[in-house]
Amino acid sequence: MLLKTSTRSLTEQLVDRFSERIRTRLLVPGARLPSVRQCAQQNGVSPSTVVAAYDQLLALGLVEARKNRGFFVREWAAAPDPAVLPQGVLVPSDTPAIALLPHGGASTWSTAQWLASRMASGHALGAAAPVNATALIRGMFHKVSNKPQPGTGVFPPEWLVSDFMPAAVRKVCNTRALQDFSLNYGEPQGDTGLRRLLAQKLAALNVVTVPENIITTVGATHALDIVSRTMLRPGDPVMVEEPGWAVEFARLSALGMHILPVPRRADGPDLEVMARYCEQHRPKLYVSVSVFHNPTGYTLSPGSAHRVLQLAQQHDFHIVEDDTYSHIAPEHASRLTALDGLQRTIYVSGFAKILAPNWRIGFMAAPQALVERLLDTKLLSTLTTPALLEKALALCIEQGQLRRHAERIRTRLDAARARSVRLALQAGCVFAAEPVGLFGWVDTGVDTDVLAQRMLDEGYLLAPGGLFHAERQPSTLMRINFATTQEAAFWRTYQKLVEQMR
Amino acid sequence: MLLKTSTRSLTEQLVDRFSERIRTRLLVPGARLPSVRQCAQQNGVSPSTVVAAYDQLLALGLVEARKNRGFFVREWAAAPDPAVLPQGVLVPSDTPAIALLPHGGASTWSTAQWLASRMASGHALGAAAPVNATALIRGMFHKVSNKPQPGTGVFPPEWLVSDFMPAAVRKVCNTRALQDFSLNYGEPQGDTGLRRLLAQKLAALNVVTVPENIITTVGATHALDIVSRTMLRPGDPVMVEEPGWAVEFARLSALGMHILPVPRRADGPDLEVMARYCEQHRPKLYVSVSVFHNPTGYTLSPGSAHRVLQLAQQHDFHIVEDDTYSHIAPEHASRLTALDGLQRTIYVSGFAKILAPNWRIGFMAAPQALVERLLDTKLLSTLTTPALLEKALALCIEQGQLRRHAERIRTRLDAARARSVRLALQAGCVFAAEPVGLFGWVDTGVDTDVLAQRMLDEGYLLAPGGLFHAERQPSTLMRINFATTQEAAFWRTYQKLVEQMR
Repeated sequence: MLLKTSTRSLTEQLVDRFSERIRTRLLVPGARLPSVRQCAQQNGVSPSTVVAAYDQLLALGLVEARKNRGFFVREWAAAPDPAVLPQGVLVPSDTPAIALLPHGGASTWSTAQWLASRMASGHALGAAAPVNATALIRGMFHKVSNKPQPGTGVFPPEWLVSDFMPAAVRKVCNTRALQDFSLNYGEPQGDTGLRRLLAQKLAALNVVTVPENIITTVGATHALDIVSRTMLRPGDPVMVEEPGWAVEFARLSALGMHILPVPRRADGPDLEVMARYCEQHRPKLYVSVSVFHNPTGYTLSPGSAHRVLQLAQQHDFHIVEDDTYSHIAPEHASRLTALDGLQRTIYVSGFAKILAPNWRIGFMAAPQALVERLLDTKLLSTLTTPALLEKALALCIEQGQLRRHAERIRTRLDAARARSVRLALQAGCVFAAEPVGLFGWVDTGVDTDVLAQRMLDEGYLLAPGGLFHAERQPSTLMRINFATTQEAAFWRTYQKLVEQMR
Repeated sequence: MLLKTSTRSLTEQLVDRFSERIRTRLLVPGARLPSVRQCAQQNGVSPSTVVAAYDQLLALGLVEARKNRGFFVREWAAAPDPAVLPQGVLVPSDTPAIALLPHGGASTWSTAQWLASRMASGHALGAAAPVNATALIRGMFHKVSNKPQPGTGVFPPEWLVSDFMPAAVRKVCNTRALQDFSLNYGEPQGDTGLRRLLAQKLAALNVVTVPENIITTVGATHALDIVSRTMLRPGDPVMVEEPGWAVEFARLSALGMHILPVPRRADGPDLEVMARYCEQHRPKLYVSVSVFHNPTGYTLSPGSAHRVLQLAQQHDFHIVEDDTYSHIAPEHASRLTALDGLQRTIYVSGFAKILAPNWRIGFMAAPQALVERLLDTKLLSTLTTPALLEKALALCIEQGQLRRHAERIRTRLDAARARSVRLALQAGCVFAAEPVGLFGWVDTGVDTDVLAQRMLDEGYLLAPGGLFHAERQPSTLMRINFATTQEAAFWRTYQKLVEQMR
């Protein structure tokens, strides 16, 4: 909110706000600024104040004016010349959040039209604008305010506090042990004890494997990166669920892959679209979140799982199943890797969602024939992974503490979800998917890219629906985190702005 | 050594030995096994024992017979079907070592002929056999024996033992602090305190930068990986010093880059070859180890540094300077990044060589204009890096302990080097480069690929010269680690085998 009592003028405050959002990519290159009239109205200032602010942004080289269309963030504005822009130090983050997408060229098309046209033309998305693609995740690390953030993808830190985690670290940190595993590179595949426990954990999900087929990584992100680099060459076609996780789209795009977005339905991927992709493009890989899919919360049905695997067999592609939300999901949920027995599937998960996001411990379980190749890629990217945290995690698992911790989190999440859902419905939201797991997928009835910028003014970071698509597109949907949307204050602000926008 | 007293027959022992080397890639795909006569003679067994062993290796699918040429390791032998080969668990490593290269197709050419032909044809190395390329580093993690290993690239663990490292870890591990930084993703660029100290450390090397232009990584390997992925697209030409570090060749090859090997001379790269590459291929990047170059120990001269930067300016390429050995090198040594002021250079280093290889802490200092793009790639590959170890490292640097530790290691290395050099000369070695730093680059007068396999039988892992080339080629050179070649026993064995081979 702009403050008349500030030592900085209203114009300066506006310039500061837009500069900061551009620098942190909460406003990404190509995004349109509100019109002068809108901006003045929204902020309760005179149009001349806004004009003066926009002029300064122009002079700073952060935005450009397009004739009769307004002001847009410049393509390279996020990395400005330090001589031009006043230096700012990155604010240490403790509230991961999500960058916001502007309207793109496809804004006049419906999703279906756009998808159909892309399928017909075989257009490679990967070639387009890798910088903008990677920009999507930069907002994850910027602290917007001290309020609970609806757009965040993780549990609030206070939910994750435990006694056992620091105790486990201290236990593996005794002088002798620490030197034993610190003073050499360590095991290429990761700590043996941890891999043994992970194999046991997977058995409970009916994913049968051995420690020798498990490779630890620097978070699930690193595992997905290793799989992409090992299984695909640039230009290779790869099927990804849409809507889906922005980082996956950004990574595949940066690697130059040909992304084939598969519409995700309540029971699984759109099999007709998949079959057509297989015929036309011969994709090599399918990237999927089967259980508690991000952002929808959908869970794969057993029948759909079976048919996906039949397609994979028939058209000879591999599948990487990202089971990031396994800790809050039912063990009996259908997993492709469980049905397949890790024959042409690779299982990926991690511990950022349940224990300690900063420990960056992830892993994959792979078919025997792929382990050596995947390990090669791990070695080329980081050599090994730090054993200290892997050993501490192994202790937490071994003593049953992590399991009990996850149970407590699930119980707390159930209560939070009930409350958030009630408030969301009261605020006029419509759930586009049954509310389960960590995320709600809600229809707001208004453009969530515009809403997200307005909510930022109020200190709330949203995750607008457009974020979850391979290419920018407007959306009235947004993803909410049930753990961070329990406060009536947020929903009051939300409702006020939505009503203004209607 | 084969033992007649073993419970396993001599044939079985031979089969075990070759299977193990093939599985751990100490014998890489395409490598030729010794002839039956040679193998029998070397091991003091009858030719029929060897024939029986080779037959079993054939039956196991690990080798293939080529008419009139002998037995060769099969291309996919390193990832055999578990049903065929008895399962073995990876031996935990504490002696990193180096995989051995077989003779390749270029064996009848001189290095100069081969280089000339490649320059003429503009042949892209990157396209060839990525699996073999990445295989190079797999031997690094296999423990061959309890003897000091001449081929290893790091200091022995016992050299790195210190009191201050465990103390620093314990200090940052107090419950409150640990939870503060573990329960969120952390700072994208890495721990602020560490980056501030790194900027100060770099100032002592005349590399002037700010914490905001430093990004921490999962070891120097990760930094080099991030630079390659950010600056290059597959097929892009990239200049790399040759001889040079095998992992760098392997990574660029796996990424599909067009490797242009630049001969490394005592005072720097061959500038004529570089100039020709620039005219013919317009390379985008030059990868260089300026100080205590691996494997030669060469250090760049100021004049050569200046001319390299002139070339970079003229032909518009970037330079990544890998300063991995900075901790044991003189501060005043010429660094490209120091001369250039990080304008078109990126500085990379890490702490595996001096503090704790398993902590996997590396970093880069980059031009302001590249920081955002490099950070994008870091986020897509691992999101963030674990703060616990970065904070512990920061403590070790801040309290001056790491500096004093490095001084002690340098003194110890000087003594070790004097002793190793004397023994090497007595054993008939000729130093191809002045012995400085950690590595000696010695001419043995015999084929070091063959010598390396013979020395393996005696429990010693060598680093033959061919390992340090972009494509396999025979060499009489080898790299020795001065810290691990101080024992007369090694040199006696070495001398005995070299004399047998002459």
